[in-house]
Amino acid sequence: MERAGLVVVAALTVLAGIARYASGFGHVAAFVLAGLALAGGAWIVSFSTEQVGQRFGPAATGLLQATLGNLPEFFVVVFALNAGQRVVAQTAILGSILVNALLVLGLVIIVGSLRERDHVMRFSPRLPNDTATLLLIASFIVVLVGLTNSAHDSASHHIKTISIVSAVAILAVYGFWVRQYLAAPQAGAEEGGKPRLSQVASLTLLVVAGIASAFVSDWFVHALEPSIHTLGISQTFAGLVIVATAGNAVEHAAGVVLAYKGYPELAVSVVKNSIAQVAAFLLPLLVLVSLFTTTTLTFAFAPVYTGALLGTAVIIWQITTDGEATPFEGVALVAAFVILATVAAFET
Amino acid sequence: MERAGLVVVAALTVLAGIARYASGFGHVAAFVLAGLALAGGAWIVSFSTEQVGQRFGPAATGLLQATLGNLPEFFVVVFALNAGQRVVAQTAILGSILVNALLVLGLVIIVGSLRERDHVMRFSPRLPNDTATLLLIASFIVVLVGLTNSAHDSASHHIKTISIVSAVAILAVYGFWVRQYLAAPQAGAEEGGKPRLSQVASLTLLVVAGIASAFVSDWFVHALEPSIHTLGISQTFAGLVIVATAGNAVEHAAGVVLAYKGYPELAVSVVKNSIAQVAAFLLPLLVLVSLFTTTTLTFAFAPVYTGALLGTAVIIWQITTDGEATPFEGVALVAAFVILATVAAFET
Amino acid sequence: MERAGLVVVAALTVLAGIARYASGFGHVAAFVLAGLALAGGAWIVSFSTEQVGQRFGPAATGLLQATLGNLPEFFVVVFALNAGQRVVAQTAILGSILVNALLVLGLVIIVGSLRERDHVMRFSPRLPNDTATLLLIASFIVVLVGLTNSAHDSASHHIKTISIVSAVAILAVYGFWVRQYLAAPQAGAEEGGKPRLSQVASLTLLVVAGIASAFVSDWFVHALEPSIHTLGISQTFAGLVIVATAGNAVEHAAGVVLAYKGYPELAVSVVKNSIAQVAAFLLPLLVLVSLFTTTTLTFAFAPVYTGALLGTAVIIWQITTDGEATPFEGVALVAAFVILATVAAFET
Repeated sequence: MERAGLVVVAALTVLAGIARYASGFGHVAAFVLAGLALAGGAWIVSFSTEQVGQRFGPAATGLLQATLGNLPEFFVVVFALNAGQRVVAQTAILGSILVNALLVLGLVIIVGSLRERDHVMRFSPRLPNDTATLLLIASFIVVLVGLTNSAHDSASHHIKTISIVSAVAILAVYGFWVRQYLAAPQAGAEEGGKPRLSQVASLTLLVVAGIASAFVSDWFVHALEPSIHTLGISQTFAGLVIVATAGNAVEHAAGVVLAYKGYPELAVSVVKNSIAQVAAFLLPLLVLVSLFTTTTLTFAFAPVYTGALLGTAVIIWQITTDGEATPFEGVALVAAFVILATVAAFET
Repeated sequence: MERAGLVVVAALTVLAGIARYASGFGHVAAFVLAGLALAGGAWIVSFSTEQVGQRFGPAATGLLQATLGNLPEFFVVVFALNAGQRVVAQTAILGSILVNALLVLGLVIIVGSLRERDHVMRFSPRLPNDTATLLLIASFIVVLVGLTNSAHDSASHHIKTISIVSAVAILAVYGFWVRQYLAAPQAGAEEGGKPRLSQVASLTLLVVAGIASAFVSDWFVHALEPSIHTLGISQTFAGLVIVATAGNAVEHAAGVVLAYKGYPELAVSVVKNSIAQVAAFLLPLLVLVSLFTTTTLTFAFAPVYTGALLGTAVIIWQITTDGEATPFEGVALVAAFVILATVAAFET
Repeated sequence: MERAGLVVVAALTVLAGIARYASGFGHVAAFVLAGLALAGGAWIVSFSTEQVGQRFGPAATGLLQATLGNLPEFFVVVFALNAGQRVVAQTAILGSILVNALLVLGLVIIVGSLRERDHVMRFSPRLPNDTATLLLIASFIVVLVGLTNSAHDSASHHIKTISIVSAVAILAVYGFWVRQYLAAPQAGAEEGGKPRLSQVASLTLLVVAGIASAFVSDWFVHALEPSIHTLGISQTFAGLVIVATAGNAVEHAAGVVLAYKGYPELAVSVVKNSIAQVAAFLLPLLVLVSLFTTTTLTFAFAPVYTGALLGTAVIIWQITTDGEATPFEGVALVAAFVILATVAAFET
C-alpha cells in the first residue's frame, strides 16, 4: 500500500510542478494539485520518519515525526510571509493548532472510545497536561499582546520587540520540555509495529520528501491568492481550514488509524505532540525567522483568533486532563471546529 | 405537604390570571403574582416529574425533571422575544445558568459539606466534568461571536447565520451527551425516595402544570416591562436575577434539600443537569425557535455577560472537577453571584 | 547568620531614613536604599513570625507570615494612593501576585523538582486548588469590571460601589477559607525546624520591623516618582516588577530555600498563601481602605493586567492542580514572568 501511495504522491508533485509553470493550467487546478501534493508529502515525511524512528521508542519517534511533519507548514508560512500574505501565514499556523486540537483529536477520541467496551478511551494524562501547559503559555503572550493592541497601550507600539523576547522565552520552555519528555519513561512503549523499510530507503525518502515539500509549498502559496479570489473564499478560511488541513489532515489520519487499531497512547501522542510543537516551537520559530522575510510575523492575532486559541487550549485541557475520553467529548471537539470554521468562512 | 402546596400554587395561578385581565390591579401586583405562580408551577412540574420518573433511575429522572422544569423559562423567553424584550430574554437564559451554577450550587455545597463529619461533600466527578465541557463549548461560541462583534469583523454581519450553524452543532453535542449519560451506570442510584402519587395523578399534574406555565409566562412577561419602570430596576437585573430566580429557585430548593438530607449525588445531579441543559439545549433551541419570533436571539451577548458565562464555566469546573467540595467553595460561588447581581443592578 | 542580617537591615533602614531627609542624596540612591530596607524589613517580619509561630503548626505560621509579610506592600500601596500614584498602587498589588505566582513559584518548582530522583516535586493539591479558587474569584470581579468599562456600560459609572460590595464579598470568602484552612489537618506538619529565638525577642523584632516598614514604605514611595523619571522606567514596570520584587523577593527566597532543603509542602504553602492573601485579602482590603485616601483604588485594572491576572490564575491552577510539578513547568512559569515584565517595560 505504501508503494502505491508513493507513486501517487510523486505523480501529484510532478503534476503540481507542471501546473505551476506550464501555461494553460487554471489557478484553481494548480492550487488543488499543490494542496494534494503537500498533503501527500506530509504523509511521506510522516511515514518515513516512523520507519527511521522505530529504534528510538515512541516518544522520540512521535517528536521527530511532528518536527519533520511540520516542515510543509514551515515552508508555506515562510513563503506566504515573503509574498506579503500575513493573514494566510497567521491563520495557517493557528489552523494547524486548531485542526489538530479540535478536528483530529475529536475524531481520535470518537474512534478510540467507541472501540472500547465501556466507550471510555484511556491514556496517560502526562502528555496532555504538558501540552496544555505549552498551549496556555503560548496563549498567554497572544492574549497579552491582543489586549495591549486593542487598548492602544504604549506597549502596542513595541509588539515586534515584545514578540522577539517572548519567542525566545517560549522556545526555551519548549527546549526544556523536549529534554524532559525524552528522558521520561514512556507510556505505551509496547504499542506500534515493525519497520517495513530499510534504514537507507527511509532516510532517502525523508530527504527527497523534505526537499520536495519546500518546492510544493512555494507553488501552493503562489496559486493560493488567485484561487481564493476565483472561489470566493475568505483568506482566513483558506489559511485556517484549507492550508491547515492540507498540511495536517492526511498526516494525522495516522492518529485516527492508530486510535482505531487500539493504540490510544500512540494516537494521543501523535496529535498532542503536533499541537505542542506548532504552538511552542513552530510559532515562536517563525516569529524569529520572519525578521528576515518581507512581512513580519508577531504574536498579534485578530481578537477572534486569540479567543479561539485560548478557548481551544482550555477545552482540550479540560477534556483530556483526567486521562479519559468518551465519544461525546470527541463530538464536542468536532462541533467546536465546525463553529470555528463557520466563523472563519465569514471573515475576510 | 405536597397537597397544601398544590392548592397554594393553584390559587396563585388563578390570582395571577385575574391580575392580568381585571382592571384595578397594579402592574407590580400582577408581576409578583405571576412570578410566584411561575415558581410554584416549576415546583409542581419538578415534583410530578420526580413521581413519574421513580422507575427510570436518577439519571433519566434528573434529565426529565430538568427538561420539564425548564418549560417556564422556555415560555418566558419566547414571549419576551415576541414582545421585543431581547435584553430580558437573553439575561433570563443566562440568569438560569448563573443562578444555578453560582447561587444554587453554592448553597448545595455549603449545606452538603457542613453535614459531613470532615466538612467535605463527595460526589462522582463525571457529571460535573461533562457539564463543564458542555458549558465551555457553549461559552466558546458566545466568546467568538462577542470578539467578532467588538472588533467589527466582517463575520459580525453574519451573526445570525453563524448562530444557527452553531446552535445545530451544540444541539448535536447535547444529543450525544444525553445518549451517553443515560447509558452509563449511575452513581447514587440507591439514593432517593418512594413515589407518593399514582402514575395517573402524576401525569395529569404534569400536563396541567405544563399548560398553566405557558399562560403564566405570558402574564409574567406582560407585567414585567411596566413593573421594571415602576420599581426602578434595570432590565438586566430583572432578567438575570428576578426572572431566573422565579424560574429556578423554588425548583432547585429541591437540590438544597437533597444535599441537606445526605443525597450528594442527586443534589449535584439536579443542579448540574439543569445547567448543562440550559446552556447546551435550551439556549441553542431558543436561537432556532427565535427564527419564528419578532425578535431574533443569537449567541451575541453583551461583553460583561460573555465574561460572566465563561468565568462561571471555569469556576464551577475548577471547584467540582475533583468530586469534592468544601464549605468555603460554596461560599465562593455565592459570593460570585452577589458580585454578578451587583453589576447587573447597575446595568440598563 | 540571622544576627548579621538584622544588623545589615537596621543599617539600611537608618541610611534610607538619612537619604530621605538629608539633602545631597540623589533620588535614585534614596530609592535604592529604601527598596533594600523594605526587602530587608519583609525578611525580618517573615523570620520573626516564623519564630513566633513554631508552636502553631505550618498552616497558622504560613498564614501569619503571609499576613505580616504583606505589611510593607500594604503601606506602600496606601502611601502611593495618598500620593496620587494610582498606577504604582495597582501594579504593586498585581505585581505581588504575579511575582509570587510566576517567578517565585517557578523557581520553587525548578529547585524542588530537580532535587528529586525522578525530577517530580510532590505536594498536597488542596492548598493549590484553594488558591486557584480564590484567585479565580478575584479575577472574576476584575474581568467583569474590565468588560463593563471597555464596553462603556452604564455599570461602568458605578465601579466604586460595585468594587465596595465585591470587596466585602471576597473578604467574606477569604475569612471562610482561613477558618477552614486552619481547622484542617495539615500536610507537611512534620516539616520545618526548631525556634532559634526566644518568644520575647521574636515579638519585639516583629513589632519593631512592622513599625519600621511603615516608615520605610513612605520613604520608598516618596523617592519612587522622581527615580522613575531619572531612570526612564515606566510606572508600570516600577510597580509590577521593582516594587513587587522589593516587597516579596527576599521574603520568598525563603520559599526557594525550603524547596531546596526538601520541604516541598512548606515551600508551596509559603508561596500559595502569599498569592491567596494578596488576591483575596490585601486587594479587597485596600479597596475599602482607599475610601479614606486621596486616590481611590477599585477593581478596574488596565485590560492587559486583567488578562495577566486571569492568565496567571489559570496557568498556576493547571500546573499545580495534580499535586505534582516538573522542572519544565517551573521554567514555563518563569518564562511567563519574563514575557509579562517585557510587556510592562513598554507600558507607561
